[in-house]
Amino acid sequence: MATTQGQVITCKAAVAWEANKPLAIEEVQVAPPQAGEVRIKILFTALCHTDAYTWSGKDPEGLFPCILGHEAAGIVESVGEGVTEVQPGDHVIPCYQAECRECKFCKSGKTNLCGKVRAATGVGVMMSDRKSRFSKNGKPIYHFMGTSTFSQYTVVHDVSVAKIDPKAPLEKVCLLGCGVPTGLGAVWNTAKVEAGSIVAIFGLGTVGLAVAEGAKTAGASRIIGIDIDSKKFDTAKEFGVTEFINPKDHDKPIQQVIVDHTDGGVDYSFECIGNVSVMRAALECCHKGWGTSVIVGVAASGQEISTRPFQLVTGRVWKGTAFGGFKSRSQVPWLVDKYMNKEIKVDEYITHSLKLNEINKAFDLMRERGCLRCVLEVHA
Amino acid sequence: MATTQGQVITCKAAVAWEANKPLAIEEVQVAPPQAGEVRIKILFTALCHTDAYTWSGKDPEGLFPCILGHEAAGIVESVGEGVTEVQPGDHVIPCYQAECRECKFCKSGKTNLCGKVRAATGVGVMMSDRKSRFSKNGKPIYHFMGTSTFSQYTVVHDVSVAKIDPKAPLEKVCLLGCGVPTGLGAVWNTAKVEAGSIVAIFGLGTVGLAVAEGAKTAGASRIIGIDIDSKKFDTAKEFGVTEFINPKDHDKPIQQVIVDHTDGGVDYSFECIGNVSVMRAALECCHKGWGTSVIVGVAASGQEISTRPFQLVTGRVWKGTAFGGFKSRSQVPWLVDKYMNKEIKVDEYITHSLKLNEINKAFDLMRERGCLRCVLEVHA
Ligand SMILES: NC(=O)c1ccc[n+]([C@@H]2O[C@H](COP(=O)([O-])OP(=O)(O)OC[C@H]3O[C@@H](n4cnc5c(N)ncnc54)[C@H](O)[C@@H]3O)[C@@H](O)[C@H]2O)c1
Ligand SMILES: NC(=O)c1ccc[n+]([C@@H]2O[C@H](COP(=O)([O-])OP(=O)(O)OC[C@H]3O[C@@H](n4cnc5c(N)ncnc54)[C@H](O)[C@@H]3O)[C@@H](O)[C@H]2O)c1
Ligand SMILES: [Zn+2]
Ligand SMILES: [Zn+2]
Ligand SMILES: [Zn+2]
Ligand SMILES: [Zn+2]
Repeated sequence: MATTQGQVITCKAAVAWEANKPLAIEEVQVAPPQAGEVRIKILFTALCHTDAYTWSGKDPEGLFPCILGHEAAGIVESVGEGVTEVQPGDHVIPCYQAECRECKFCKSGKTNLCGKVRAATGVGVMMSDRKSRFSKNGKPIYHFMGTSTFSQYTVVHDVSVAKIDPKAPLEKVCLLGCGVPTGLGAVWNTAKVEAGSIVAIFGLGTVGLAVAEGAKTAGASRIIGIDIDSKKFDTAKEFGVTEFINPKDHDKPIQQVIVDHTDGGVDYSFECIGNVSVMRAALECCHKGWGTSVIVGVAASGQEISTRPFQLVTGRVWKGTAFGGFKSRSQVPWLVDKYMNKEIKVDEYITHSLKLNEINKAFDLMRERGCLRCVLEVHA
Repeated sequence: MATTQGQVITCKAAVAWEANKPLAIEEVQVAPPQAGEVRIKILFTALCHTDAYTWSGKDPEGLFPCILGHEAAGIVESVGEGVTEVQPGDHVIPCYQAECRECKFCKSGKTNLCGKVRAATGVGVMMSDRKSRFSKNGKPIYHFMGTSTFSQYTVVHDVSVAKIDPKAPLEKVCLLGCGVPTGLGAVWNTAKVEAGSIVAIFGLGTVGLAVAEGAKTAGASRIIGIDIDSKKFDTAKEFGVTEFINPKDHDKPIQQVIVDHTDGGVDYSFECIGNVSVMRAALECCHKGWGTSVIVGVAASGQEISTRPFQLVTGRVWKGTAFGGFKSRSQVPWLVDKYMNKEIKVDEYITHSLKLNEINKAFDLMRERGCLRCVLEVHA
C-alpha cells in the first residue's frame, strides 16, 4: 500500500491554462480518490489529435484550465471506497470510454458507449461531487475525457480503468488507450470486414494504419490507402496497404478515381482524417448495393457531412465508430494480450519518445510529416 | 397459345407525350417480344409517386414520350426466344427491379439491385437492340422503369417477371409490384427490426403504413407514426401504429420531440416521404449507440441530406432501401403467397378503383388526402 494513500499528492502535470497557449509544467495537487474512483500513477502517455483539438480552443466544449491526455498507461496508486476490480499496484490503461456493465448502453449488447459517467467527464469533473480532483494552490483544474493523463498522477472513475497484464511494457501499450484500438475496432467491430473485401482507407496516420492492419488480419484482398502525403506509402505497406492513391495526382474527384480502380467501388471505406468532404468521398467510393463507409475521423465542431440520399437508397451504408466499438474494460486487456502474443503491432506506431516537460515540442511534432505517435515518459 | 403471338399488337395505353401534360389514351403498337423478353397483358395497375415524379418533368432522367406505370399485374401473352421461366397464360407481376441471378449484384448475396438490364431500362429501351417495343404510327415511345404498365400490353425483360399464384386476385396483388413490398422489406430486410424495438415512421402513406405492418409483425413494442396530416392516424392504427405525432403540434424540432418521448431515441426510423430535412430528423431521432435510420422516400433530384458526423460517430447508422431489399423474381411470389394466407394486408391500401381512361383523375387523386393507392382496370 502506497504511503500516499488518502493523501493529497503534489506532482508534475502539463496544464493547459488557456486555449492555444503553450502547456505549462506545474506542480499540481491531486486529491485522493473518492468512492468509486482510482488514482493512477501515469508512467507513459502519448498525444492524440483530440488533445490538440481541445487545446487549440476550437472545441466549444473545451474547458480551461485543464489537464489534457487520454492515451496512457500506469500503475494504480490507491483506490476509493467500494472499488473492487483493481487494487494498488495493478498495471492499468485509463479509458476515456467507460464500461460500467450496468447502464442501458452497456446492457444493450449493441454499443460500447457507456453512459454511466459521461455527464461528469463531459464537463471535466468527477461524478460523486461534480468536482475536480486537480488543483493548483486551491484553484481547481478541470479533468479531460475522464482521463487527464498529462500528469504524474490522475484520478479516474473505476468504470474507466482497464487492468492489464503486468508484464506488458507500459511505454508501448499506452497506445492501446486510443488510436490503435480505434482503427482495429473500426474494421473488426463496426464494419466487420470479411475476407476477400476491397477496402479504402482515407488518411494514413496512426488510426488509418491501424485500420490497414485490421483489414489485413480480416483477410481483405485489396487495401487502398489514400493520403495527400505520398511519403506515407512506404510505412503503410508494412501495415498492409497494397495500393496507394494520392488525390493530388488526379483531376477527377477521388471517389471517381477509386470507383474506376475497383470496378464499381470498394466494399468498405474508412475516413481517418476528420475532413467532412473526405467523409463524403469515402461514402461515395463505396460499391452500390452493399458498400459500407465508417467515419473514424473527428471533424471540427459545427461541420456537416452531406450526400445525395440516392447514395443510401442504392444500398450504401454510412456508419461511425468511437474507440472502434471496443468495450474498454473488457477488451483493452485482450488487446494487450494480442500485442504480447505478437498478433497486433504497437511499437511500429511510435516514431518519437520524449519527456513530459518536452510536451510542447511533442505537440509541434504532431504537425510534422513522419510523426505517428510521440510517447512521453511522465516521471523522467 | 395466343393468336397474337409474333404479331404487333395494337392496344390502348396512356401516353405521356410531354412532361406535365395530361396523359393521352392512345392506340399504340406493341412489338412482339424478342429473345429474353416477355409480352404481358396488363390487367390492373396502380399509380405510385415515381410515376408522378417523372411525369412532372422534375426527373432529369425522364424521357418523353413514354408509357409510365410500374405497380401492376397481368398475364403473359407471349414470350421471346430462350425464355424458359414463364409461358403464355402465366399470371405475373412485372418488376422494375430485375433479378438475373447471374450478375455481380445478384451473386453477392448482399443486395437486390440486379445490374443486368439497368443500362437499358434506365434509358427507356430494351437490352437486345437498345430500342423500344412501343410506337405510335412508327414513332417510338420510351419504356419506363422496365415495366410501362399504363398500357394494355407491355414488353419486359424476362429477368423482370415474377410468376405468381394464378389464384391471386390481380386487382389486389398488383400492389405487390412496388409500395407495399418496399415498406415491408425496409423493416424485414434492410433494418432487420427485432422484437421489442421502438420504431418511428415518418409519413403514413402506403409505404409508411407497410413499414408499420412490417414493424408490427416483427414484434416492435412501440410504433410511432409521424405525419403532418392528423387524419392519417385512424387508418394508421389498423396497420400497427401505436402513437401518433404531428410535427405541426410542436415548436421543438421533431427529432427532439421524439427523443424526449422515447428516453433517448428510437431503435429504428424510416423516412417514407422523400423530404431531405425529414431524412435528417429521422436519423437524429435515433438512439445513440445503435439507432438505425432507413431512407425509403425518394427525394427530388439534386437535393442532399446532411447531418453532423458526430451523429454517426456516436453509433447511429444511416441506410436506404430500394424495393425493400426484396429479390423480385424470387420474393414477390412469396409475398403473394403471404397475402393469400392472410399474413399481410393488401386490400386495405386500395382506396380508389378507376379505369385506365380515367388515369388523369387518378393522378389528381394522389394529391388528395385519404388516397393511398388507386388501382386502374386496364381493359375496361
Ligand atoms: N472515432 C474515434 O474514436 C477516434 C479516436 C482517435 C482518433 N480519431 C480521429 O481520427 C483521425 C485520425 O487520427 P490520426 O492520429 O491517425 O491522425 P494523423 O494526423 O496522424 O493522420 C491523418 C492523415 O490524413 C492525411 N490527410 C489529411 N488531409 C487529407 C486529405 N484531404 N486527403 C487524404 N489524406 C489526408 C494526413 O496526411 C495524415 O497522414 C483524427 O480526426 C482523430 O481525431 C477518432
Ligand atoms: N425506395 C423505394 O424503393 C421506394 C419505392 C416506392 C416508393 N418510394 C417513395 O416512398 C415515398 C412515400 O410513398 P407513398 O406512396 O407512401 O407516398 P404518400 O404521398 O402516399 O405518403 C406520404 C405521406 O407523408 C406525409 N408527409 C408529407 N410531408 C411530411 C412532413 N414534412 N412530415 C411528416 N409527414 C409528411 C403526407 O401527409 C403523406 O401521408 C415516396 O417518396 C416514394 O417515391 C420509394
Ligand atoms: Zn485519441
Ligand atoms: Zn455503462
Ligand atoms: Zn413505386
Ligand atoms: Zn442480376
